[in-house]
Amino acid sequence: MTGKLIVFEGVEGCGKTTQIVRSHQWLQTTFPQAKVVVTREPGDTHLGLELRQILLAKTTEHPISELAELLLYAADRAQHVAQVLKPNLADNAIILCDRYTDSTIAYQGYGRGLERKIIDQLNLLATGGLESDLTLWLDVDVEISLLRIKSRGASDRIEQANLAFHQRVQAGYTQLAAANPQRIERIDASLSEVAVAAQIQNVLLKYFDN
Amino acid sequence: MTGKLIVFEGVEGCGKTTQIVRSHQWLQTTFPQAKVVVTREPGDTHLGLELRQILLAKTTEHPISELAELLLYAADRAQHVAQVLKPNLADNAIILCDRYTDSTIAYQGYGRGLERKIIDQLNLLATGGLESDLTLWLDVDVEISLLRIKSRGASDRIEQANLAFHQRVQAGYTQLAAANPQRIERIDASLSEVAVAAQIQNVLLKYFDN
Ligand SMILES: Nc1ncnc2c1ncn2[C@@H]1O[C@H](COP(=O)(O)OP(=O)(O)OP(=O)(O)O)[C@@H](O)[C@H]1O
Ligand SMILES: Nc1ncnc2c1ncn2[C@@H]1O[C@H](COP(=O)(O)OP(=O)(O)OP(=O)(O)O)[C@@H](O)[C@H]1O
Ligand SMILES: [Mg+2]
Ligand SMILES: [Mg+2]
Repeated sequence: MTGKLIVFEGVEGCGKTTQIVRSHQWLQTTFPQAKVVVTREPGDTHLGLELRQILLAKTTEHPISELAELLLYAADRAQHVAQVLKPNLADNAIILCDRYTDSTIAYQGYGRGLERKIIDQLNLLATGGLESDLTLWLDVDVEISLLRIKSRGASDRIEQANLAFHQRVQAGYTQLAAANPQRIERIDASLSEVAVAAQIQNVLLKYFDN
Repeated sequence: MTGKLIVFEGVEGCGKTTQIVRSHQWLQTTFPQAKVVVTREPGDTHLGLELRQILLAKTTEHPISELAELLLYAADRAQHVAQVLKPNLADNAIILCDRYTDSTIAYQGYGRGLERKIIDQLNLLATGGLESDLTLWLDVDVEISLLRIKSRGASDRIEQANLAFHQRVQAGYTQLAAANPQRIERIDASLSEVAVAAQIQNVLLKYFDN
């Protein structure tokens, strides 16, 4: 089996982290020979952790400009690609990655309204052209996903942003999926955890059969 | 007087900080009406201070990729332009800025060999096209400037890099000055502090006379 980059995308609370844990276990059982690696953006590098702190600690006293924020995410991504993704792909690993370039398009582009051309330019620069082999878009209404997050208890700056923002993000994912049917698989994430997991396993089985 | 962005450039130890202090005092005496602002890159913002720490604390254990570093500098610059340069120019200030876009071209481009096209693209993105009105290039042989730094006592990661690297940086400044004679003024920085200061005052007087 050659290395594969499998990305989990979707609005906050859609179930990415939950399903990555389940997919990880399932893949290890189903393909015991395979090396399976779990990672996320922003952050699974030393630099990423530092940037994550800066981005989440953003205050009104020292607001970070939208462009600076975009460049920080790009720096994190460049480091993540160089330090985690490329070496593991070279090692033939199956990588399960929590968010990647589509998150930047959905959040900074559709959500915040930053220029798509700049986002595409920075995504291309930061990744050196490395695209996901398969992206699982966990599609669920924002009303449901935000309720899930509330019951999870945690809440940070981004989750506190308003409903309209999250609906723009969700619309962004919808358009990305329509524009990239060969790469993005829609998963109905409104169902129960096990039902979502079953859909994902189905997609993965088909994918690895080819 | 309308706002002006005056940048001091040159290799480490050429005397930028020394001459900015002197120019600041001289401008305040000579143009008592003017608002004179001193700033630097990377850094005179909250974000910049945090990034400066990340960049200088760079270790061999967690090396930052060259591309990620370039993007961090760009993020710092975007924030600096938005938070410091643009508001002060709008306020008609004379800004004395320690390093700007030419430093990235000289250090990351000529010094490290990163692709010039990428550097130009990021400089343009981060600045939104804001160029210096006047750049004072303090030209001095690397052998002399590194000796000055040694006698200053301080030493950080960048200063420890080897002589050949600094010579490539110096060659970069030489080419930049040749290519941008309308914007970059060469100052002979091998002379004494007062002789360098006098040359700079001369250039500034001519500049503000126009
Ligand atoms: N299919 C599901 N049905 C109901 N609740 C779910 C489902 N999947 C996950 N949850 C719960 O919803 C909450 C959010 O799930 P999870 O943290 O996996 O989402 P996420 O997409 O990783 O969110 P974030 O973007 O904030 O990291 C958790 O409390 C989780 O237990
Ligand atoms: N013309 C000069 N002749 C001799 N020594 C000088 C001269 N100008 C500055 N110095 C001394 O050289 C050292 C470096 O000067 P300075 O810190 O101003 O350089 P710099 O360009 O700001 O360096 P850096 O890039 O590291 O910030 C200081 O100790 C300073 O006192
Ligand atoms: Mg999560
Ligand atoms: Mg200095």
